[in-house]
Amino acid sequence: MNHEAVTVIGMGSMGRALAEAFRAAGHPTTVWNRSPAKAAALVARGAVRAETVADAIAASPLIVVCVLDYDAMYATLAADEAALAGRTVVNLGSGSPEQAREAAVWAARLGAAYVDGAIMSTPPGIGRPESMLLYSGDAAAFARHVGTLRALGDPLDLGPDAGVASLYDTALLGVMWATLTGWLHGSAVVGADGVRAADFTPIANRWLAHAVTGFIGHYAAQVDAGAYPGDDATLDVHLATMDHLVHASRDRGVDTALPELYRAYTERAIAAGHGADGYARVIEGLRA
Amino acid sequence: MNHEAVTVIGMGSMGRALAEAFRAAGHPTTVWNRSPAKAAALVARGAVRAETVADAIAASPLIVVCVLDYDAMYATLAADEAALAGRTVVNLGSGSPEQAREAAVWAARLGAAYVDGAIMSTPPGIGRPESMLLYSGDAAAFARHVGTLRALGDPLDLGPDAGVASLYDTALLGVMWATLTGWLHGSAVVGADGVRAADFTPIANRWLAHAVTGFIGHYAAQVDAGAYPGDDATLDVHLATMDHLVHASRDRGVDTALPELYRAYTERAIAAGHGADGYARVIEGLRA
Ligand SMILES: NC(=O)c1ccc[n+]([C@@H]2O[C@H](COP(=O)([O-])OP(=O)(O)OC[C@H]3O[C@@H](n4cnc5c(N)ncnc54)[C@H](OP(=O)(O)O)[C@@H]3O)[C@@H](O)[C@H]2O)c1
Ligand SMILES: NC(=O)c1ccc[n+]([C@@H]2O[C@H](COP(=O)([O-])OP(=O)(O)OC[C@H]3O[C@@H](n4cnc5c(N)ncnc54)[C@H](OP(=O)(O)O)[C@@H]3O)[C@@H](O)[C@H]2O)c1
Repeated sequence: MNHEAVTVIGMGSMGRALAEAFRAAGHPTTVWNRSPAKAAALVARGAVRAETVADAIAASPLIVVCVLDYDAMYATLAADEAALAGRTVVNLGSGSPEQAREAAVWAARLGAAYVDGAIMSTPPGIGRPESMLLYSGDAAAFARHVGTLRALGDPLDLGPDAGVASLYDTALLGVMWATLTGWLHGSAVVGADGVRAADFTPIANRWLAHAVTGFIGHYAAQVDAGAYPGDDATLDVHLATMDHLVHASRDRGVDTALPELYRAYTERAIAAGHGADGYARVIEGLRA
Repeated sequence: MNHEAVTVIGMGSMGRALAEAFRAAGHPTTVWNRSPAKAAALVARGAVRAETVADAIAASPLIVVCVLDYDAMYATLAADEAALAGRTVVNLGSGSPEQAREAAVWAARLGAAYVDGAIMSTPPGIGRPESMLLYSGDAAAFARHVGTLRALGDPLDLGPDAGVASLYDTALLGVMWATLTGWLHGSAVVGADGVRAADFTPIANRWLAHAVTGFIGHYAAQVDAGAYPGDDATLDVHLATMDHLVHASRDRGVDTALPELYRAYTERAIAAGHGADGYARVIEGLRA
């Protein structure tokens, strides 16, 4: 067990969860927040409240920032920016890949190492080994501090481009919204015939976790190769079955925009001559 | 181990896999196909080829049908329909819930029991205990034959309404297409910045199998209750993050129709005054 000191800047609901996980794992934990009262419970459990941002920075080699956005991070650290030299800033607040890349340049100018992170969890998941936290940026700094960061959840290393963690973050949220919307649509379709979501959902989740992830794993190699053999099911076959879903939805008064959207993608790929290819071919149309 | 005799009608790629699984599990297996040659390999391994549909029906109390569609099933069984009395027809071909319900009426008229099934697998998955086969229809007949049907994969009992298995089938395929399309979209977004699908996909699959299925499980109770507290993330928060994905997609030349669709659903729910609710609220708009 390492006992590296760590500073957490930002005591919103996420920052408090982060600081508590570091503290519980035995790291001397210094905290700072614009509104100091939010740190009270943590301080009662043994965290140290820094009176100033300068004190917060001075306390630890590892400065974890979790405030609203990049402007709030810059505004806060501006109080003693020069003191960041030789330290590592890990920013776990949300932002775009472009903002993360700019922050890497900003940190380099100050002689600090910058690692960007994305938390794929809500505050109650922090500290659980199954929770994913994505990191990208300064490789040496990440290697130095990953043992400490592990207290927050499973740290995944996405390489040296600081923008990649938040790019994955937004892409993974997109996968989530697409899946949630698909499941809500399916629940509406079966619900119209009196099936409860409580009955449909365990089967949908088993299908997702075991079958659909298998198809995705199979298609990943096709996407990288740019070749999409229809070795399991062809786009022609998918199209016919999609029509059934569109009709079943319409017959039940359920919105058809989602099945019509992927049917349109499928039709477009078939029209381009790819009816014998598999579903992964659709990515070519998304890129066009 | 039971050794109930079973007849399989239809020796397409799926019917052959079904018959082989019954045979391998020790069931005396009789097979029939319009084009007899397709049964040759099975017969070489010990299945019995029926010369006529009448012989095929007479051979077993359990008649599993897997042909192109309902018309093909009716056309085939018409050769000796009356002989179905007292037997169970399990139809594993694809069709609509309405067609399955009509088939239950047809079978009842003949004094036969009818169970409709949906195979959530391709032929190579047949016989594996992790493959799901959905059944609905005559409860007593299902109970009588489920031990035999288990040879095909895990048999899930969806109750007495014969239409429900194919309703689940189409709804589950919808969940699959939504998820596949979301994953292809995410792969296109990260791919634009040089990330390979082989790197993104294991993380996307872990996110799907462990996190997203957890959200879905949590929301199922909300859907049944018709109350959608935003206890994890509110629609207002989702909307802001969806905007990031729309922009990140557009900046990278990736099609935005999918994120714009669920953003529109989200906006509609917020406009109706539900911004503090969670994402499951979107189902109300899908039903409207
Ligand atoms: N909550 C989650 O589930 C979750 C998940 C993944 C990522 N995140 C990200 O984590 C970050 C923080 O989220 P949160 O849930 O902790 O939010 P929150 O509870 O609303 O807290 C916001 C934090 O930002 C600070 N802040 C806002 N404007 C500031 C400014 N101009 N100067 C200095 N500090 C400022 C706040 O300080 P005051 O207390 O003084 O207002 C507070 O510490 C966000 O980027 C969020 O997207 C959150
Ligand atoms: N393959 C899969 O992955 C899969 C998965 C789930 C469900 N299914 C469903 O299973 C069913 C069969 O699929 P499959 O993959 O085995 O298809 P297939 O290889 O094309 O075989 C079609 C079967 O239907 C028979 N058939 C077609 N028209 C007929 C007619 N008018 N009269 C009598 N027999 C007729 C064919 O007989 P001939 O040999 O004489 O042409 C053949 O046995 C379909 O409903 C399909 O949707 C398939």
